[in-house]
Amino acid sequence: MKASEPPERVSLGRLGERGLIRRIRSREAARTAGAGVEVGIGDDTAVLTVPPAHRLLATTDLLIEGVHFRRVSASPADIGWKALAVNLSDIAAMGGIPRWALVALAVPAETQVESVDAFYVGLDEAAAPHGVTVVGGDTSGSPGGWMVNVTLLGVHPGTPRLRSQARVGDVVAVTGSLGASAAGLHALEIGLDRARDAGLTSRQLAEITGAHLRPRARVAEGRWLGQASGVHAMMDCSDGLATDLAHVCRESDVGARIALDRIPVASAVEQAARALGRDSREWAVCGGEDYELLLTADPGAIDHLVAGLREATESSLTIIGRIEGPAGEVVFVDANDRPVAMRAGFEHFHG
Amino acid sequence: MKASEPPERVSLGRLGERGLIRRIRSREAARTAGAGVEVGIGDDTAVLTVPPAHRLLATTDLLIEGVHFRRVSASPADIGWKALAVNLSDIAAMGGIPRWALVALAVPAETQVESVDAFYVGLDEAAAPHGVTVVGGDTSGSPGGWMVNVTLLGVHPGTPRLRSQARVGDVVAVTGSLGASAAGLHALEIGLDRARDAGLTSRQLAEITGAHLRPRARVAEGRWLGQASGVHAMMDCSDGLATDLAHVCRESDVGARIALDRIPVASAVEQAARALGRDSREWAVCGGEDYELLLTADPGAIDHLVAGLREATESSLTIIGRIEGPAGEVVFVDANDRPVAMRAGFEHFHG
Repeated sequence: MKASEPPERVSLGRLGERGLIRRIRSREAARTAGAGVEVGIGDDTAVLTVPPAHRLLATTDLLIEGVHFRRVSASPADIGWKALAVNLSDIAAMGGIPRWALVALAVPAETQVESVDAFYVGLDEAAAPHGVTVVGGDTSGSPGGWMVNVTLLGVHPGTPRLRSQARVGDVVAVTGSLGASAAGLHALEIGLDRARDAGLTSRQLAEITGAHLRPRARVAEGRWLGQASGVHAMMDCSDGLATDLAHVCRESDVGARIALDRIPVASAVEQAARALGRDSREWAVCGGEDYELLLTADPGAIDHLVAGLREATESSLTIIGRIEGPAGEVVFVDANDRPVAMRAGFEHFHG
Repeated sequence: MKASEPPERVSLGRLGERGLIRRIRSREAARTAGAGVEVGIGDDTAVLTVPPAHRLLATTDLLIEGVHFRRVSASPADIGWKALAVNLSDIAAMGGIPRWALVALAVPAETQVESVDAFYVGLDEAAAPHGVTVVGGDTSGSPGGWMVNVTLLGVHPGTPRLRSQARVGDVVAVTGSLGASAAGLHALEIGLDRARDAGLTSRQLAEITGAHLRPRARVAEGRWLGQASGVHAMMDCSDGLATDLAHVCRESDVGARIALDRIPVASAVEQAARALGRDSREWAVCGGEDYELLLTADPGAIDHLVAGLREATESSLTIIGRIEGPAGEVVFVDANDRPVAMRAGFEHFHG
């Protein structure tokens, strides 16, 4: 912000909507204009150029205070980061290149401008490494809490990876590890002091709460896997492995069998589960919001994929099961190959 | 909806998020797949094809209960209609072709499914005449009222009309007429019974409340004007003529002088103003939400534009003033060419 901008302890009620829009626009204009942006914020619509022979990808996500986050644990910068990151993850899951964001933000009139600035700082921190430009949006007063809607547009030079492309006999694999976001949410919900008292270190807490508040979308991994031969279906793990894999199975008309003991879980998550008396497998399978990539692949290609992904991105890819069994059914088995019932992930509207 | 769908008196709490998404998806799949849609609702992102040599247009608008509408006067179908229409208007103002919508909807868990169905019916009614397809979205519970965010994507085969292209000496013109939306909002706010008691007929009330609840975006007019020679700046009248024209002047670094008595106002609006003791000019200049197109044009081309637009779309185009005077200043004058102070339009965050 320039010296001529209003001082930071100013409420939106004083700054006004147009003052806010000018402020947002000067932020964004100060950054290098993004690829393919002819007209950004400030006209009736953004005007963009999709490169020749590229497909356009489009996704949108709502984040609502009291539903998706609590202000007591998520800072405005965290909210901005996550609002963008969850959309980056959707583009990553198609193997696409994220490009342009439209950001709608509603906040109460008494909100301080510094909070709104921090929201955009967090959003930019998530956007900048991927060259994503904010090209439009909307602002509004809110009669309740914060509400954010980010629409992210991306481009794809080839064939996007769909959920419907799993084939019987495929292996099922996942990038990185699962459960850290749910562990972090649990620690935030019970309170960090109580989690510390239970024996978790600051470092462990930072790892799991960071995974929840500032998830990192697997954009580079998605790009690499999206063009690699042998990858069939791909999606991101946003609602929890159980729920997300059920989507793949339904869309592909196949079933899946997953070995619980092969699911990668970070050691901080194992330690948090032990310290807090919870089940790390449940966090990993049912928790959601890990934003790892879930894919099915030709078994003959998987070793090459694991090695290639590590070389290209330093990220791991772990085989956790196989596409088999009755269509639409996801079966989780223990180390003795016995089925284990796992509850479904989070669903809106249910109590 | 098919016979196998749940009965309509079901709350979202019972149907659940996935039930709702299936319901939305089956609605949209039942319609003819839209132009350029490779993958619509149901994967991580939509996959779309922008025609060769076309630019991409993108715009987003929030509608929030208690801020942008009240449930007591706006039905779910009205909300759906308007959420799409306000975005159509932005694409129209660039001279573009609307194509694909992403619809994010948050509603309380106790909301009846029939209300959500009605929302999509209203949205489809606004979308269908323009061939717009819903290709994605998000659904969420809401701790407060309804919140809607629609992102609309369009394409443009030529050069979009920007706000920054007004030139000194241009005439300022507006399609259709102004003030009906503000008149309708006023009638809804005071109550239709009271408006009827004041002497307004049902037909007049239907005209003005319809303009407020179900605005018609000037898509065909925008297409025609957007490619017509002599049109310079163009934008839509969403925040009120005074505010919107000030945007054009600021972006173009020019001033404007508008003759109040040349502003087109429908007779139902004049009658409503007389009956309710209000000023129709204030509704027309400061009210907003008329979604007419506001443009500046070469004075030598305007007669051709007026005649051509009428022939192509049956819509009127009225000269209301001229681009002149100090940069950034919009002056309204009466029939004797004397300046008249007009208050600015609606702005969020101010009380």
